[in-house]
Formats: sequence, C-alpha cells, structure tokens
Amino acid sequence: MFNKVVIAGVGLIGGSLGLALTRRNLAKEIVGVDPDRDNLNKALALGVVHRADSLAEALPGADLFILAAPIGVTLGILEMAIPYLTPGTIITDVGSVKGRLIERAEQMLPQDSYFVGGHPMAGLEVTGVTGAREDLFDGATYVFTPTANTEISAINSLKDFAHALGSKVLELEPAEHDRAVALISHLPHLLAATLVNTVAADDDCGGLLKLAGGGFRDATRIAASNSNMWRDILLTNREMVLQSVREFRFQLEEMEQAIINFNREDLVSGLIRAREVRESLPENRKYVSRIK
Amino acid sequence: MFNKVVIAGVGLIGGSLGLALTRRNLAKEIVGVDPDRDNLNKALALGVVHRADSLAEALPGADLFILAAPIGVTLGILEMAIPYLTPGTIITDVGSVKGRLIERAEQMLPQDSYFVGGHPMAGLEVTGVTGAREDLFDGATYVFTPTANTEISAINSLKDFAHALGSKVLELEPAEHDRAVALISHLPHLLAATLVNTVAADDDCGGLLKLAGGGFRDATRIAASNSNMWRDILLTNREMVLQSVREFRFQLEEMEQAIINFNREDLVSGLIRAREVRESLPENRKYVSRIK
Repeated sequence: MFNKVVIAGVGLIGGSLGLALTRRNLAKEIVGVDPDRDNLNKALALGVVHRADSLAEALPGADLFILAAPIGVTLGILEMAIPYLTPGTIITDVGSVKGRLIERAEQMLPQDSYFVGGHPMAGLEVTGVTGAREDLFDGATYVFTPTANTEISAINSLKDFAHALGSKVLELEPAEHDRAVALISHLPHLLAATLVNTVAADDDCGGLLKLAGGGFRDATRIAASNSNMWRDILLTNREMVLQSVREFRFQLEEMEQAIINFNREDLVSGLIRAREVRESLPENRKYVSRIK
Repeated sequence: MFNKVVIAGVGLIGGSLGLALTRRNLAKEIVGVDPDRDNLNKALALGVVHRADSLAEALPGADLFILAAPIGVTLGILEMAIPYLTPGTIITDVGSVKGRLIERAEQMLPQDSYFVGGHPMAGLEVTGVTGAREDLFDGATYVFTPTANTEISAINSLKDFAHALGSKVLELEPAEHDRAVALISHLPHLLAATLVNTVAADDDCGGLLKLAGGGFRDATRIAASNSNMWRDILLTNREMVLQSVREFRFQLEEMEQAIINFNREDLVSGLIRAREVRESLPENRKYVSRIK
C-alpha cells in the first residue's frame, strides 16, 4: 500500500500504527523518528519500525508521514519537517484536538503538500511503545477532518489505510470533531479525575477506598491515564472542554434539585434517560482495557 | 451453620445470598418470601430457595431473617414481620443506606430481637433473581453497622456468615457508612447518569455516541443500573449525597479554574493526584461486570 512510511513519535499510538502497518503488509518500509533514543531502540526491538532515522534522512521520498508525537510538540515537529518534505507525501497527525492544529498546519505547509488531520479514537491507560498493539485500531473509529484545502487523493488514501487497520472511518469538520471529543472523551476524563480527587480530599480516603466496588473502579478507570498528555489535551481543547463542563454542571444541578426537592419523578426520569441512552450504545469492540 | 434462613425479597442480592447459603452448606432450609409469585417460582426453579411461604408461616423458628427487598419497602416488611418473630432470630438487611433504617428498626423491634444492619457491597448492573450468582459476595466487602444496642452474639454470627461467603468484613457506624457510600458509590452513580445526560442533551447525541470509546463506556457503565432502585438510594441517603455533590463541585471548580487560567501546574497536579490515588486501589476482585 505504501512504500515508505515515516512515523514521528513512536509511543503507544505511533508504535501501534507501525505494528499494524508491518503485520498487515501495508508498508514496505517504516522509519521511526523520535528524540528518545531508548524509545527508538525499544521500537526496533519490538519490530514496530524497520529503522530509526532523523527527519532530514527519513522524509525524502516518503509516501506517508504520520505525526504521532504528543499534542504539545506536533506543530514544532511539522515545522522542522517542512524543508525535507517531498511533494506528494501525505501528512497526517493523530492528535485528540484538531481545530487549531489544522489551521496552523495549513498556514505553515507549502501548497503542494497533502495534509489531512486524523484522530484514531483508540487508546489505553498505558502509554509508550511497550504498550503498542497491532489490533489497537481494529473496530475503533478513525476520524479524519478534511477541509476545503484537502487533496481528495490524500484523504482517499488515508481512508483506505484506516479501513485496512480495521477501523470505521468518520469524516468531521475540525470544530465539529473538537466539540464532540470534548463531550465524549475529554469531559469524562476530567470528571473521572475530579471524582477521584473528591474521594482523595476526604480525611478518611484510605477507608473509603476499601469500600470501592466495581462501580467506582469503572467510573474512575480513565483517571489513571497519563497526566501530562491529558493536561495538554484539556488545555489545547480549552474552549470546548469548558463549554462541556458548563453543560455538565447544568445537568448536575437538575439532578441535585430533584434530590433537594425530593422530586421522585424528575429524579427517576433523569436516571431512566441516562440508562436508556447508555443501553443504546452498540456492542463494545474487542479492545479490552489492560488496567485493573 | 443455620437451620432455617428466611429471605424476604428474592432479587439479585437475596437470590445470590440464597444460592451461596445452599451451595456452601450454610443453611439446612432456606425459605423465600416475595410478593411476586413469578419471581418466587423462578427462585425455586433456580434452587435459590428451598420453599416459598408467607412471613407468618416462614418466620417462626428461623435462625436468620434477611431483609433483601428494595430499600423503600424494607421497613414495611420488618413491621409486618414483627408479630411472627421468634426471640433469638437474628435479623439483618442488605440496604445501601443504614442510618435512618437502623434507627427506625431499633425503635420498632422488641427488646429481645437481634437486629444488625448489613450491606454486602456487591452488585451487578442486572437485577432480579435470574442474575443471582453464588459467588457474588466472594472477595467483596460486607459491611455491618452495629450500634450500642446490638447483641454481640448476633454480630458474631453474621461475621462468620459473611466470611463463609468469602467476603471481607468491615464494621462501621451507620452514619459513617452512609457518608462513605455517598462518596464511593452514590456520587459515582449520579455522575455517570449526569454525564450520559449531558451527551444526551446534545443536538447530535447519536453522532457523539458513535465516537464513544472505552473511556466513555467505562465511565458510564453504572448509568445502566436499575433506575427505581437508584432513585430510592439517592433519596434515602439524601443529605450525604448532596454533601458529596457539593464536595465534587468544589473539586470540579478547581480543575475548571486551572483550565480557564491556563494554569498548567495546577491542572497537572490535579491529574497526577487522581492518577496516583486511582492506581493505589488494590487489585480488582474476581467479580466481572456483565454489561457491555
């Protein structure tokens, strides 16, 4: 499918993309670029990339360039990459927030470059290349966020690529994506962390945790995710996250009022609505969280 | 261990207690009492109880009387049971809220009755006797809430019983229990339902749910629990639940302020605290949620 793929940032996502590209015979050569030499050595040992190189050496002649570094450094890497890009190289990223990144990328890149924002919606509470899994994207939703400037052949190649990973493809406008992930992903992370901190703030936190059952564990599992990564995601998607927090607070006040007023009808109808929507979620895909 | 055990309310918890009592040879005879005849027939078919009877017929000569009906009707059943209680019968309940129930039960019961509040902290998103599992309490925490009026021999028998189910026993004061479960169980349920409702309130709820990954699923799994049961729990533990919501809101505002002010340090330290506390939770017990 591709002759040469360059992956900048060989962590959980970049590493899993490398594994999937190799194992599914989607690329002849996969080159890893990463400032962390130890990490690159691990990636080589795990067969995640075929060789490691600098951007300058790796990029010329690449069909596909995947920006898979942490969201805070993606634009910096793209800027460093520009002098070495070959016309026709398809460029995509894997970041959880799209609007500002795509705007800046389109300003920054030459006219003949093929940039398409991407967000494979898969993750684990673990990070790093040692957690990489070939099937991480199998059954997941892979979002692309083309704009009026996006080259059709580039988005089509990427859609084929995502399908070959086993993903379902969804095209969204960048702002639409950011609003959606704020509600369905970033808000849940913020709430899970806040719930843990509410328990942690109690004088008898240790005693409380002894009573934690499956409900608390499930509700807070994502609070164990990488803190720096989530700080950057929440700040990068700041406006949409804050808006979703306001919407959540409004809903919480409704439930709270029902409890304060002993309003059995309002309370149960809120609980029923939630149950019905939750039960409407389609069957889980095969990905299983690795954390306790 | 017991000659005759009477279980009033043969649902998920009552049914699982019945199964565990039979399969672990903890009782010679288990009698089910339930206003729902269909449910009793299912319980008999599943071997959860040996026979079904009325309170009047079942209670005389019982060693143990377990109130396992929904929390809203527990006191009513206890009141109906009083004329048929034999002195020396140990009485316990399985309700998620203890303070008011125990106060009322102690006022209501004759001096020679042996009442001990109990709360086996195990559950599933499914309800009803068909979900009953012999191992539901294995590895779970079984809380008892004795008071100054509790007979020592009764609490000791119940502790032996809980250990025989495979549970870890914890003794708490009723108010202490209610405060703890508000934070570790009732608040998480309320937040999970509220999170789902925040997404449900969006014009594009269907589109958002397509993007739901493992994080949203985990965080909202308990929103699929029985709505009437949770309405009753939240209202019965009203003061403690409202206090825990206030504490949560305070923590949420701290996180929100960090995002508004672009305060990277405060935000990441909140996320790190949550991650560390979440990671400190001991290994999960073998109970596995049955819901997708």
